[in-house]
Parts: sequence; structure tokens; C-alpha cells
Amino acid sequence: MIGPVQLGRPEVFGIGYLQERLDHEFPLVPHMGVAVASADERGVVLCAPFAPNANDKGTAFGGSLFSLAVLAGWAFTARFLAARSLDGDALIQESTIRYLAPARGALRAVLEAPATEATDRFCRMLERAGRGRLRLQVGVFDGNTLAARFEGWYVAQIR
Amino acid sequence: MIGPVQLGRPEVFGIGYLQERLDHEFPLVPHMGVAVASADERGVVLCAPFAPNANDKGTAFGGSLFSLAVLAGWAFTARFLAARSLDGDALIQESTIRYLAPARGALRAVLEAPATEATDRFCRMLERAGRGRLRLQVGVFDGNTLAARFEGWYVAQIR
Repeated sequence: MIGPVQLGRPEVFGIGYLQERLDHEFPLVPHMGVAVASADERGVVLCAPFAPNANDKGTAFGGSLFSLAVLAGWAFTARFLAARSLDGDALIQESTIRYLAPARGALRAVLEAPATEATDRFCRMLERAGRGRLRLQVGVFDGNTLAARFEGWYVAQIR
Repeated sequence: MIGPVQLGRPEVFGIGYLQERLDHEFPLVPHMGVAVASADERGVVLCAPFAPNANDKGTAFGGSLFSLAVLAGWAFTARFLAARSLDGDALIQESTIRYLAPARGALRAVLEAPATEATDRFCRMLERAGRGRLRLQVGVFDGNTLAARFEGWYVAQIR
């Protein structure tokens, strides 16, 4: 059975862990300036400065909003697996993004962990089939303004 | 009435025109290495090298596939407006992307112009309301492999 998270050592799979993985595993991430602001069982928050992710009209590039959101989902799933000593990849399979308001400042992608029933089901799929699917939702904010709403299905495959 | 395209001068709103706009209007584009391969009334093809858009597992980053596709839609709409002497912005409003196969090489985003009925309706909306919506589909390929299928709704606003 997939063991419980080692809650006594949250720092092991926290901000520093995800920042290093993001910077090393995705060449585009340093160009976007992605910074992990929080990372634990409750969710993940990624930030990015405005300038490298803008267009010349003074609003954020839609591709950057999407990338920040899809990375938040990847980061949540990657640390979820790592915190349970599961050696596996997280891949995005399908996603939808709705752009609700133009972002004109620094970006913040906020992912709140899905309900326990969903993560429990995800764990059971991983145990039974070595593969599981998880639906994650991310809001991308500029200050208090919700600029985009992202929903993605991630697949994890255990090696 | 929105005038016909100046078909005698396709180069004016062709590859060089869009390459310059992409490079100057989106700071992230040079980091992705986006290159316009074709651009005319029939559609737009954008290419990008693998390395800057990959992850360390040897497959393309989902955010890059999305960004290349969303830029293809923007490029099609931007040149569609410019070729008709319409001064306006094209914005992505909503989109869905499905990742069908891992991409392991150079990326190519292929957008075929929608049916004439759709572009005619788009022109009528622009004429009547100064604002129109257009649904565009993009396939992102690695060689002959369809890696992702993108669909987006773009809004154009005439200044």
C-alpha cells in the first residue's frame, strides 16, 4: 500500500525541491522566471515576473499563463509522487484554459489540492495499475484578479 | 465593407511580417526559437527547435506545445486583420489542448484557415460590432506524428 506522507519532514519535498526540479527539467522555466512560492500537501503556488511573460501591449502572454498553470499541476503531481516514495513521471494529457481578464503584473498560479476522495482514488489506481489519472484546477492571478482558469488531466506512470 | 485581400502582394503580410511581429511582441518567442515557415490566406505554419522546448526526459514540454499552437492562432488572426487594413488586436479567449503522443524532435504547428463561411462571419462581426470571434484549430507535429491537437477561440477588437 502507498505509505503516508512523511509529514514530519515537509521541507524534503517543499519549495527548494520543486524549484530545483523545475529549473533543471524544463529549459524554458528560467527564461520565464518561475519561482515556487509554496509547495505542500495542500497545494502549490508558482510565481513569475511580468516582463518575460508579457506581450508588447502590456498584458501577459496567453502561452505563459498556460505554461505557469500546467507547471503548477506538474509540480503538485511530481511532489505528491515523491513524498510517497513513488518513482514516476507526471504528464499532462488534456487541458482547458479560459482567459477571464488581462493580467498586467506579476503572475501567481494557485493550485489547491483536490478533495481527498480524488487523491485516494489516484493512489488506488497507481497501486493497482502502476498508472493513475488526476484532474487538477489552477487559477492564475495578477494580484487579486483571476486572469485565467485552468483545468488539466494529468497521468502518472510508475517506473 | 471590409475590402478584399491584396493578393498581388502576399509578401507584405507573409513570413517576414509575422516573424518580426512575433519576435518583437512576445519576449518569450526568441527563447523558444519560433520560426514562421509559411503564412498566407490558407494558413500559418510555425516551427520551433526541440532543445529549448523540451524537458529532461527527452520529450517536448506541454507548455511549449501549447504556446506554439496559441501563437499560430494569434499569427493567423493578426495577419488576417492586417491584410484587410484592419487595425486591431487578436486575443485568445478560451482553448483546449489534447496531448496525443510525446514529441521527441523539432515542433511544427500547422493551422489551416477555417472554412470561408467562418471567416466571412468573422468579417461581418468586425464590420457590425468592431469585434469578432473566430474558432481556430492547430495540430502540433513532430515529423509526421500529431503530438497535440489545439482548439482556440480568438477575439479580435478593432481600434
